[in-house]
Amino acid sequence: MSRITRRNIAKDTTMQRVDTILTEGVVVTMNEQYDVLQNGAVAIHGGKIAAVGPTDKILAQYNSDTIVSCRGQYILPGLINVHTHVPMTLLRGLSDDLRLDVWLYGYIMPTEREFVSPDFCRVGTQLACAEMIKGGVTTFTDMYYFEADIATETARVGMRAVLGETVLKFPAPDAASYEESLAYARTFIETWKGHPLITPAVAPHAPYSNTQETLEKCAELAAEYNVPMMIHIAETRSEAEDHLSTYKQTLVHWLNKIGFFKVPVIAAHCVWIDETEMRIFREKGAAVAHCPSANLKLSSGIASVQDMLDNGVTVGIGTDGPASNNDLDMFEEMRLAALLAKTQTYNPTAVPAKTALTMATRGGAKVLGMADHVGTLEAGKAADIIVLDSQPLHNIPHYDFNPDNVYSRIVYASKASDVAHTLVNGAFLMRDRRLTTIDEQALRVEAVGYSARIGAFLGDYQRNVLSKLIAVSVGVERGESFEIQVKAVLRDPSTIETLLDHPDVEVLRTTHYRQHDTYFMFDDPTAGRVRYREDDKVDDEGKIQDVRTRLTYTSPEKDRQIDSTIALSRSRFIAAATQPLRFYKEYFQADTERTLDKDRRRWSITYRGVQFYINVDQVLQPAQPGLYIEIKSRTWSARDADFKAAHVQEMLRILSIEADDIVTFDYLDMLPATNA
Amino acid sequence: MSRITRRNIAKDTTMQRVDTILTEGVVVTMNEQYDVLQNGAVAIHGGKIAAVGPTDKILAQYNSDTIVSCRGQYILPGLINVHTHVPMTLLRGLSDDLRLDVWLYGYIMPTEREFVSPDFCRVGTQLACAEMIKGGVTTFTDMYYFEADIATETARVGMRAVLGETVLKFPAPDAASYEESLAYARTFIETWKGHPLITPAVAPHAPYSNTQETLEKCAELAAEYNVPMMIHIAETRSEAEDHLSTYKQTLVHWLNKIGFFKVPVIAAHCVWIDETEMRIFREKGAAVAHCPSANLKLSSGIASVQDMLDNGVTVGIGTDGPASNNDLDMFEEMRLAALLAKTQTYNPTAVPAKTALTMATRGGAKVLGMADHVGTLEAGKAADIIVLDSQPLHNIPHYDFNPDNVYSRIVYASKASDVAHTLVNGAFLMRDRRLTTIDEQALRVEAVGYSARIGAFLGDYQRNVLSKLIAVSVGVERGESFEIQVKAVLRDPSTIETLLDHPDVEVLRTTHYRQHDTYFMFDDPTAGRVRYREDDKVDDEGKIQDVRTRLTYTSPEKDRQIDSTIALSRSRFIAAATQPLRFYKEYFQADTERTLDKDRRRWSITYRGVQFYINVDQVLQPAQPGLYIEIKSRTWSARDADFKAAHVQEMLRILSIEADDIVTFDYLDMLPATNA
Repeated sequence: MSRITRRNIAKDTTMQRVDTILTEGVVVTMNEQYDVLQNGAVAIHGGKIAAVGPTDKILAQYNSDTIVSCRGQYILPGLINVHTHVPMTLLRGLSDDLRLDVWLYGYIMPTEREFVSPDFCRVGTQLACAEMIKGGVTTFTDMYYFEADIATETARVGMRAVLGETVLKFPAPDAASYEESLAYARTFIETWKGHPLITPAVAPHAPYSNTQETLEKCAELAAEYNVPMMIHIAETRSEAEDHLSTYKQTLVHWLNKIGFFKVPVIAAHCVWIDETEMRIFREKGAAVAHCPSANLKLSSGIASVQDMLDNGVTVGIGTDGPASNNDLDMFEEMRLAALLAKTQTYNPTAVPAKTALTMATRGGAKVLGMADHVGTLEAGKAADIIVLDSQPLHNIPHYDFNPDNVYSRIVYASKASDVAHTLVNGAFLMRDRRLTTIDEQALRVEAVGYSARIGAFLGDYQRNVLSKLIAVSVGVERGESFEIQVKAVLRDPSTIETLLDHPDVEVLRTTHYRQHDTYFMFDDPTAGRVRYREDDKVDDEGKIQDVRTRLTYTSPEKDRQIDSTIALSRSRFIAAATQPLRFYKEYFQADTERTLDKDRRRWSITYRGVQFYINVDQVLQPAQPGLYIEIKSRTWSARDADFKAAHVQEMLRILSIEADDIVTFDYLDMLPATNA
Repeated sequence: MSRITRRNIAKDTTMQRVDTILTEGVVVTMNEQYDVLQNGAVAIHGGKIAAVGPTDKILAQYNSDTIVSCRGQYILPGLINVHTHVPMTLLRGLSDDLRLDVWLYGYIMPTEREFVSPDFCRVGTQLACAEMIKGGVTTFTDMYYFEADIATETARVGMRAVLGETVLKFPAPDAASYEESLAYARTFIETWKGHPLITPAVAPHAPYSNTQETLEKCAELAAEYNVPMMIHIAETRSEAEDHLSTYKQTLVHWLNKIGFFKVPVIAAHCVWIDETEMRIFREKGAAVAHCPSANLKLSSGIASVQDMLDNGVTVGIGTDGPASNNDLDMFEEMRLAALLAKTQTYNPTAVPAKTALTMATRGGAKVLGMADHVGTLEAGKAADIIVLDSQPLHNIPHYDFNPDNVYSRIVYASKASDVAHTLVNGAFLMRDRRLTTIDEQALRVEAVGYSARIGAFLGDYQRNVLSKLIAVSVGVERGESFEIQVKAVLRDPSTIETLLDHPDVEVLRTTHYRQHDTYFMFDDPTAGRVRYREDDKVDDEGKIQDVRTRLTYTSPEKDRQIDSTIALSRSRFIAAATQPLRFYKEYFQADTERTLDKDRRRWSITYRGVQFYINVDQVLQPAQPGLYIEIKSRTWSARDADFKAAHVQEMLRILSIEADDIVTFDYLDMLPATNA
């Protein structure tokens, strides 16, 4: 420290005064030559790096009121997180160890629909920034909603970011249609373009969640303002395979064909792209945001990062949102990027530590089109710098006979908690582990407030089977309905013909189904039950013509009997089942599941002008003897129900059905109980 | 805190006094019922857990001078690291991103041979313990050398450990033979058996580094004293495949056949075992130490942990040694255990966070045969406890509508740096992040001392090609030799017969080789060169009978010419090449590599009673015209060289070789230069 004291006393007037000097650290420049200065210093002025050099030399040339000794520390370019969804930090640990669809449609989307607002985005952004600054991140890339609010908060905190307003073919929390999203994006770009910290961008969510038209419009908008685009590409195998089977072209080829790569594109994940797609990326200047933790956690796979690098693709590293990670720790991601590449290629020399750190600094800057501005410690660049303890007990001793060992120490054994200072544009956002632009205590109060409200919502929702059904069926038809119905053993099938030929009967439609039902039942007597039905419509030869899957929720209230034979059935909610059966099993987590297959012939008729359905059913699995007949009609009031019940009684007489043949149990109740 | 104050004032004499009470934390018991107490407390007395319960209830029953509020913290059983090599912490970051063999034979083993001593093990153990205590580990398992010194230091620090003395078929740093290792192990067991913290064990390194006999002897010794065994099994695919091809049985079946599983075995890695092997583990009570980071880093693969668990195998989690990790962070390993299982099975529900934490606590205890003693927070168990900050910014907010979310927060978003207190047997080894039994500053000085000496050794060694050759060829023959030699164009091959039929010549042996040479050459003129030669011995039909690979180092000193024709060749070191050519390429990292293939017929003869070799060579690749003859003999002194040179001159006359036909260049010098 004596040297510093001398400087301050000397007040050499020929020396240049600068805002800040970081001295006596190991300066890991990450420049093209990978220069490392053992006792190095960085002079910072006007938000930029004025000079990098040996401490002696820098202190001979520069003076400052703020000279910070970094003895026992590394001075590094700030880490660049090239893919995340910062407001989702508020949803950290919401629900884990679930399949992507259950997680997304079952938990994340219902919560987002209910809670995502400008304020949610502000608080979530602040929480994410706090964590990232503590973990040595100086620049991040976001894709979410209300990006203008994210931009405002990010700029207030003082971080650098590329922020992409999300565009979807569905309604989003901040837009009822994709046109609204695009309009939002346009305003957002116009407002923020040229800001020293914020780069606005357009973020079509993914090819599968957009249409060709929405993707083209996004690309046109981005090109109009010359801003980058972000998108998720080929995160899962099924996404890549579904695209190929639909479009007969791989995702990247197809995107190229529709002119998507008009501006630099930051493509997240890319777990399932091939070398020809990598080459398009290289030619078009598109870059990959590799998200190792999230890809592992959602079992998407391991991206071929070494292949990408070998094919000249620019690759950066991202944490993805903390709801699928569950944090924003770029040290973890760097380490995983290096480790996973080795196993993915069965080559322990793949993606060495030096390459991983490059991806998280200079490479990340290139991904974001900021390579001339950030990513290395070089005079003239923005002073986005972190200072990292080099000698915690978990990272000693040091071996420097191999010059690359410094990268190994940073990537394989440094932790986010080793970061001591974080500077962006020369300003300390964290100094000696204390945040300077965020009030941690106030932030905690706001974050906990959200989690209390969201937790209560999800708690109720978890306990309420109907809420879960509604949550997962948004955007599709659903409704409450009441039915009158009678069911009877059909001893003589020929009586059906008698009814259908009756002069008061007109047959509107005849259909033949095989129905596969799965019932989700709950020990809680107030829970109701959910039926998942696959209706296979079959032709005369028994071949399947059409398949329809539906969910029906029935409330636990008892049916009202209209008379001894006819029941007014309980309320039901019906929704198209857009997810596979497996999804609903994992989602509803019933206490008991039962399955039932039956053959159903259905006639849609009018009897004396009133519409009824006649079902003739045979229960196939578990096999039951005999046939059953059902007569049903939708109804809307008790009076209408009574009116229709009288018609049903007449039809029963035409069918020669006796009171003894009437059954009041569900098919389900004929089955032996089995546990889920 | 008012409650605590009240207690201290009350001095209720009916209350039980205990050593320590941890209060007001979220107690995550990890017991069979996975009980979690939101405002819980743990009373500790005499090294054991006296009671676990709600804070109110515990404070109503117990009093203590040491009541520690754990508000905003988790109280958890200490983590159990079931596989590591603690002294290797001193070799952290020695050299990374290398293939296993280059790393092990090229760097680790030479360093270990030179430096591993009782003091090295003491310092390395202390450094490892410091890191593990800081990271919430209370129990570890070690396999190394000088285990008695490791035990002494571990007991002094106060950690719990199972320590296995390594047994190899090769000499080890602490034993010249396996018999010595076994004798050491016996004394070690007798000394430490019954110690409250240390469990001695026997650790045959691996099947491939032992023999059937050494493995049997280890199992007998372990059975005699009823101590556990540790071993590395099926870490790499080639290990598993080589074993299968040699023994026609998979590793675990073979070990079972030879009676290896007499005592509980802790098998590290097991990346390449199948379900039948897992079933043997289950039947025999053998357990797996899963080491995710090390398996990734050395590209060994991803162990089938979910399959193991489904097959009833007990699985714990280990860090492996910090030379291949590069730290002892069990939070990283837990997270990876959960994440990797999902990608390995393409199922995001595999190894949920709860299972990962179980493996690192209760499961780890079961692996070590300590399940009735540690691994959960239950009355009567040893008070091996950690306290972890639950609400750092990187781990908020919390969602508790799903009771498993607490495990998700601990596994996916907690960090080693969140550990505040670590207790073993009720004693604080770390309190408020300060170690109580280790002098950090003194430890740093000792660790840095070792790294300075090791760094200097490896720096020299790196710069010295001969040192590298010697380092990598230990345990095999090597030696310096001098040769006299003459080489000439052989214009008339029939003259060979003239020589061989000469009355002064006796032919001892005739052989025919194809020789494939690779030369490693260095720009540094003082470096010398290394030749890797594959000698394919062929029969009369050209079929390969035998293959031998050798390394020859030739120093850069010029040959001494004895006369105009005969050279006394420079000094050479010759060693069997036990590694594949690829290894040596990566290991020597030559500036230039050249290859040369030739056909060699060799006669071993005596001429007037003195032994010589006659080689007739044709250079095949790069193809060269004509044949060359060489006459060579080993020599040991200048006088002997002169004596033999005279004999060579006579043979040249018999062969009618003129002075003009003599060549003084190496075959290598006939080749065009190509860069490595």
